Amino acid sequence: MSDYIKYLLKNNAQYVEELKEFISIPSISSLAEHHKDVNRAAFWVKSRLVDAGLENVAVMETGGLPAVYGDWNHAGSDKPTILIYGHFDVQPVDPLNLWHSDPFMPVIIDDKIFGRGASDDKGSMLTPILAAESFLKTEKKLPVNIKFLFEGQEEIGSPQMAHFIENHKEKFSCDMIFSADGGQWSETQPNLCMSLKGVVSMQLEVFGPSSDQHSGLHGAAIQNPISALNRILCSMKDQSGKICINDFYHNVIELSTEDKKQISEIPFSEEEYRTEVGVSDLAGEEGFSTLERIWSRPTLDLNGIWGGFQGEGIKTVLPSKACAKISCRLVANQDPSEIFECVNKHVKKNLPDGVSFKLKKLSGLALPFRIPANHKSTMVAGKVLADVYGKEPFMIRAGASIPILPIFKEILGIDATVLAFTLDDENLHAPNEFFRLSSFSRGQEIYGKLYQLLGDYV
Amino acid sequence: MSDYIKYLLKNNAQYVEELKEFISIPSISSLAEHHKDVNRAAFWVKSRLVDAGLENVAVMETGGLPAVYGDWNHAGSDKPTILIYGHFDVQPVDPLNLWHSDPFMPVIIDDKIFGRGASDDKGSMLTPILAAESFLKTEKKLPVNIKFLFEGQEEIGSPQMAHFIENHKEKFSCDMIFSADGGQWSETQPNLCMSLKGVVSMQLEVFGPSSDQHSGLHGAAIQNPISALNRILCSMKDQSGKICINDFYHNVIELSTEDKKQISEIPFSEEEYRTEVGVSDLAGEEGFSTLERIWSRPTLDLNGIWGGFQGEGIKTVLPSKACAKISCRLVANQDPSEIFECVNKHVKKNLPDGVSFKLKKLSGLALPFRIPANHKSTMVAGKVLADVYGKEPFMIRAGASIPILPIFKEILGIDATVLAFTLDDENLHAPNEFFRLSSFSRGQEIYGKLYQLLGDYV
Repeated sequence: MSDYIKYLLKNNAQYVEELKEFISIPSISSLAEHHKDVNRAAFWVKSRLVDAGLENVAVMETGGLPAVYGDWNHAGSDKPTILIYGHFDVQPVDPLNLWHSDPFMPVIIDDKIFGRGASDDKGSMLTPILAAESFLKTEKKLPVNIKFLFEGQEEIGSPQMAHFIENHKEKFSCDMIFSADGGQWSETQPNLCMSLKGVVSMQLEVFGPSSDQHSGLHGAAIQNPISALNRILCSMKDQSGKICINDFYHNVIELSTEDKKQISEIPFSEEEYRTEVGVSDLAGEEGFSTLERIWSRPTLDLNGIWGGFQGEGIKTVLPSKACAKISCRLVANQDPSEIFECVNKHVKKNLPDGVSFKLKKLSGLALPFRIPANHKSTMVAGKVLADVYGKEPFMIRAGASIPILPIFKEILGIDATVLAFTLDDENLHAPNEFFRLSSFSRGQEIYGKLYQLLGDYV
Repeated sequence: MSDYIKYLLKNNAQYVEELKEFISIPSISSLAEHHKDVNRAAFWVKSRLVDAGLENVAVMETGGLPAVYGDWNHAGSDKPTILIYGHFDVQPVDPLNLWHSDPFMPVIIDDKIFGRGASDDKGSMLTPILAAESFLKTEKKLPVNIKFLFEGQEEIGSPQMAHFIENHKEKFSCDMIFSADGGQWSETQPNLCMSLKGVVSMQLEVFGPSSDQHSGLHGAAIQNPISALNRILCSMKDQSGKICINDFYHNVIELSTEDKKQISEIPFSEEEYRTEVGVSDLAGEEGFSTLERIWSRPTLDLNGIWGGFQGEGIKTVLPSKACAKISCRLVANQDPSEIFECVNKHVKKNLPDGVSFKLKKLSGLALPFRIPANHKSTMVAGKVLADVYGKEPFMIRAGASIPILPIFKEILGIDATVLAFTLDDENLHAPNEFFRLSSFSRGQEIYGKLYQLLGDYV
């Protein structure tokens, strides 16, 4: 057993304590009142990088929520330089009443650590740091040159990161990029991720009477903004989930016959999936399998809706306003800003009489991201995964978005490889998020092996 | 000038102070945490009746929120006994941020008193008490026998009142009933109300995945409960507002040609109405005039909707649940319980795959209420209104409901006459509710004249 592996094993309990500490910082990037906590998390990461033995460690200004950088560049110029990415901000916690424990007081039950951000992304993002530490503490060196870059604004769509990466293009230049944000197929089956979706989010506000009115007195004669909002939202999709907005599918690269074959070869049980998400039936756009829908089809999702009275009992109000949060997941080559314009035109065209509207783009555009076949860093990651799991990884696609990956591609010219350990059932973005401690230690081993293989490789 | 009128004038400032005190009790019947305030309001009314010189005054148990009774029965058996009704509970105040002043710290601006309940119904319900006091303090007697009955559960649909009236049938027996809850046409034009709508309220809950999910990972493959709720609600009405629920219009008594003619003769400016409610266009069921819609057509109104994320920015959640508050205003001879069943069947039939639902009836059924032509107490009220305003009252109908009126009809056998002073623009059930102080003093005079006329009449 290599010394670095022994070191990781010996320190396992300590690392779990540190993960607990990290999760307990409520670094919610979408809520202004938690921005000080996002900063606290940045300084926590900075000090963890210093302790691990990294150099040039700094919390960096982005113009918005901060990033943290650290590197170790002494492996020699014949060795590759890799950049490893992750994020230390987390999603909001509501609805809080559905959590079984405090989201920021992590508890361990059955080898799972529960808390907001445990799986997305604090657990995974610590693994490459701990793997680097294990080399630096045992061998006083790393097999490759490493640059760590962690951000605090992933969950709001990395609004300042493009500008920030552009400003530090030289500093972040590298041969390969690995994202410690992402997932694996199951506890026993690894995967490589060949594409991620883009995203554009917006808030639709529909305005009716200038103030709330009595629904009995006026309901028969004026447009109700809740009804108008319903009608607009219904007009955006047909019964099956196909989006009825003009030009929405315009730039979509359809799956090739080969793509479809590759996807169909991945074992996928609709029954298990139904059980996992807790629904009686699946739904979605006709003409596609469930995996094709999730991985390759753009969507328009309603993430929130509100208007009028929500308390107990009834208040017979006709509200002056109703709102919805909408996000569209996009696939290559859809463009987020163009899609926003399509939605805006659609609302204008389908607006019922007697109401007005405002459609606001919310922060966090992401381009869709596809990596080419036979991509070098992905092939290396595949070897490591096959070695550790004893199984060839599935070639999958993801329905989620990591906004910075297309930014890396555009500015640094590098297609990132996703190498991270979240599993689909870990309630990310939902109550009772958790991370498997087995994934936490396996992740450390995988990053250690990756460093070693890359050091031998070139 | 009669002594009682002088007395009212002399005490005007004092009465306004008392109205302020009454409004400052937050007697919101729909919120459990305010039930103690509903009780406080009951005791305030009790003590006001005692001070006015009424007898047998008591706060009465109903099995729910209380009622207050008081009477004066010494006018002689040749004089009629009238029962006067009103309510001391109020609507909730949200959205609180739209109020210009604290809803329970009444302020007077330009002869208007602002506060929750000022217009509905604390202002109007005080007027017959003050009128009775003015007789009892000046003449030591009333021209008629009076029973006052005020309730604390009108805004939640008077759930215990039918049972309560039945239990005290003898006590409340009378020759005529006047409702001090209701309105007038304008500051200068009185009306008599020939019908009120019934109401049935419900909460529709749509359940999707067993817990909140990541919309990027699952949005393409499972039904979103917000989308499903939208689709169900949209299926309930067509674009014009016509309700598409089977049997919904089944028992509706259509307007006769004469009814339509009577309504068309009432001067009504659509432009002024648009300005009053603050909308650019009117909307509603085709084939009817605006007044016909408001007064004679049943409606299905969305009073609230919620689900998923409502905070700032975006959270890409696919929520496990979405809900709506629905109320149907009914006309003779629709039955609230039958209509609830129609809606329930409709939701069952139109439920999208992959979700389940629950439809809960909310408290507060009301039957629609119509009074016959040439109805005696209404004719007397019409004389008083014509005298005080110097104009014949319009014969109107109302879009709102007063649940107890059909209960009085059923149990006591008396059709109530609405004699109250709310005006349509006074933001009832909405932020910045107010009552005109001119209506407050005119109302006292009107009830005084009513007592006098009824005393002379028989």
